[in-house]
Amino acid sequence: MVALVGICGSLRKASLNRALLKAVSETLPEGVTMRLLDGMLELPIFNSDLAEPAAVTALKDAIAGAAGVVFAVPEYNYSIPGGLKNALDWVSRPPPSSPLRGKPCALVGAASGMSGTIRAQAHMRHMLVFSDSPCMNQPEVLIPRAHERFDAEGTLTDESTRALLQRFGVAFTAFVARHRT
Amino acid sequence: MVALVGICGSLRKASLNRALLKAVSETLPEGVTMRLLDGMLELPIFNSDLAEPAAVTALKDAIAGAAGVVFAVPEYNYSIPGGLKNALDWVSRPPPSSPLRGKPCALVGAASGMSGTIRAQAHMRHMLVFSDSPCMNQPEVLIPRAHERFDAEGTLTDESTRALLQRFGVAFTAFVARHRT
Amino acid sequence: MVALVGICGSLRKASLNRALLKAVSETLPEGVTMRLLDGMLELPIFNSDLAEPAAVTALKDAIAGAAGVVFAVPEYNYSIPGGLKNALDWVSRPPPSSPLRGKPCALVGAASGMSGTIRAQAHMRHMLVFSDSPCMNQPEVLIPRAHERFDAEGTLTDESTRALLQRFGVAFTAFVARHRT
Amino acid sequence: MVALVGICGSLRKASLNRALLKAVSETLPEGVTMRLLDGMLELPIFNSDLAEPAAVTALKDAIAGAAGVVFAVPEYNYSIPGGLKNALDWVSRPPPSSPLRGKPCALVGAASGMSGTIRAQAHMRHMLVFSDSPCMNQPEVLIPRAHERFDAEGTLTDESTRALLQRFGVAFTAFVARHRT
Repeated sequence: MVALVGICGSLRKASLNRALLKAVSETLPEGVTMRLLDGMLELPIFNSDLAEPAAVTALKDAIAGAAGVVFAVPEYNYSIPGGLKNALDWVSRPPPSSPLRGKPCALVGAASGMSGTIRAQAHMRHMLVFSDSPCMNQPEVLIPRAHERFDAEGTLTDESTRALLQRFGVAFTAFVARHRT
Repeated sequence: MVALVGICGSLRKASLNRALLKAVSETLPEGVTMRLLDGMLELPIFNSDLAEPAAVTALKDAIAGAAGVVFAVPEYNYSIPGGLKNALDWVSRPPPSSPLRGKPCALVGAASGMSGTIRAQAHMRHMLVFSDSPCMNQPEVLIPRAHERFDAEGTLTDESTRALLQRFGVAFTAFVARHRT
Repeated sequence: MVALVGICGSLRKASLNRALLKAVSETLPEGVTMRLLDGMLELPIFNSDLAEPAAVTALKDAIAGAAGVVFAVPEYNYSIPGGLKNALDWVSRPPPSSPLRGKPCALVGAASGMSGTIRAQAHMRHMLVFSDSPCMNQPEVLIPRAHERFDAEGTLTDESTRALLQRFGVAFTAFVARHRT
Repeated sequence: MVALVGICGSLRKASLNRALLKAVSETLPEGVTMRLLDGMLELPIFNSDLAEPAAVTALKDAIAGAAGVVFAVPEYNYSIPGGLKNALDWVSRPPPSSPLRGKPCALVGAASGMSGTIRAQAHMRHMLVFSDSPCMNQPEVLIPRAHERFDAEGTLTDESTRALLQRFGVAFTAFVARHRT
């Protein structure tokens, strides 16, 4: 059994990125599960003068216990959401003991426009170099016009996207196995 | 009179970036002032389901009333702090009426290592393309080994840095004048 | 009269980016012209041991004589073409006398996929910070599925793209005027 | 035996990046060798209208036959040299059969300034996502003030740099082993 966690960068109830992450969790290969860490980004703004909040410790533990992490990365202002970045700021410190160190990661993203979160994912990949987190290259999951691919309940209705997610799940399972130490 | 505002991306009391911003404010040309918007990044995590908090409206008003904005950009995880990004996420919405639209901006950054916040500033420039905010190219203020350039009270003690900040102030004053509509 | 030059990053005969640049030149406001600097990227690979080739001097002169530069930026390997980068390497040296210094620039790009050269343009903007070249933020011209928008002769057939190019031309004309020293 | 190749992005005779690559080759663990592919970047400017030049085929074969590739990445205009990018443009096509696909890569870079090629390496990492080439995250080899660390013959004289290169060699050897299919 391979147990992943999924982190959605949006706090919106009707987030297309949470819907995408749910679709990822439903298309994983047999023997692989993904638990959504919902509600864990509502943290104080990072400040190294503060003691680590309990919610940060809980997020660190959840990542530490997972075989890999899938981030759903909405694009705000051509980068990742501040809330997701803030969580990374907490979780990556202190660097030597961060649960992100060496942790296999992958990115997915959905947007209503054409770019499919390309810019946000590029920034996020750069951040994961700092935390020394291997991040899968391909297949990239960049979903443009995402509002046309999910129904009102957030269920994926587009078959080509489902096929992409299935390839993603197979590739990430192999990626996680390769990076097991 | 030209009235700028300065926004520091770090919440730490002893932040070198706040010290740098203070040094910027003290080396501006005559007739130019800069007010530090301290404490304005402690905002809820952005969520478009929420109504705009009063603290966001106050930050928007401060930016709207300024001739230009100087951001001090610490580097966390090879990007800008989550708290600064979160403030941008709030302030840039809705895009057509964001006070960042057309607002002249410039970046400065200090770090204890060698890179001087190069990566964070690169990401920040990219974000300002989204908000259609002209961002001054040169001179770049990237201060490496910053802990050696300020004393314990946060006062700049390095003359070459002071000379750079003076050139920065002159250049940004001209940049602001050029972008006045 | 405002005289611009256009530089296409692709050497292909049937380049969609050259077609796009041609369409830009045909939608500029009255009183603004753009000359395509075709064939000027076939330069030796940059090597500072070499004397400056005559073709580089010619390219520098063409840029120096223009009121602004429009670059058409194809995306190869998630960045700008090596040939375009090589031309920048030549033209930007020595930095103090580079014709790119202070020269108003704008980017356009076309691709057959969905991303419309987003990544290449992000890299190119970063390069223009080095050469201290003001680069217009908005409107961005990122043309996805470009092969559906031009006919076999490279003539633009898509009206929404034409409208975007018209807004681009108006905005860049104002941008050039603002940066005239 | 593990046989790597090294590719230097500079054509200059006295290139600090070639000197760095030579130092890398001399500090690899026992059983690991690295052959410098010198002179292989002097290629025609990429143009998909052209047939593949013999020099490109030779470069592809050298990469295909290696267990991994170390790129020495000088920084020109805040990105990688046009000549190196041009070589990538050739070598990465057609994508399905590119020798870069799945090939373990690592970056090193030297500069006379303080940044140590940070920006160029960030761009290069992004390009390797396109070619689906795993690129080692850490340790990063970013050598600032490089002219003080090599003698006139290009021999590394700085012991802290040598120690970094030794850690780099050990880490890349493990990285190559992990990515062997």
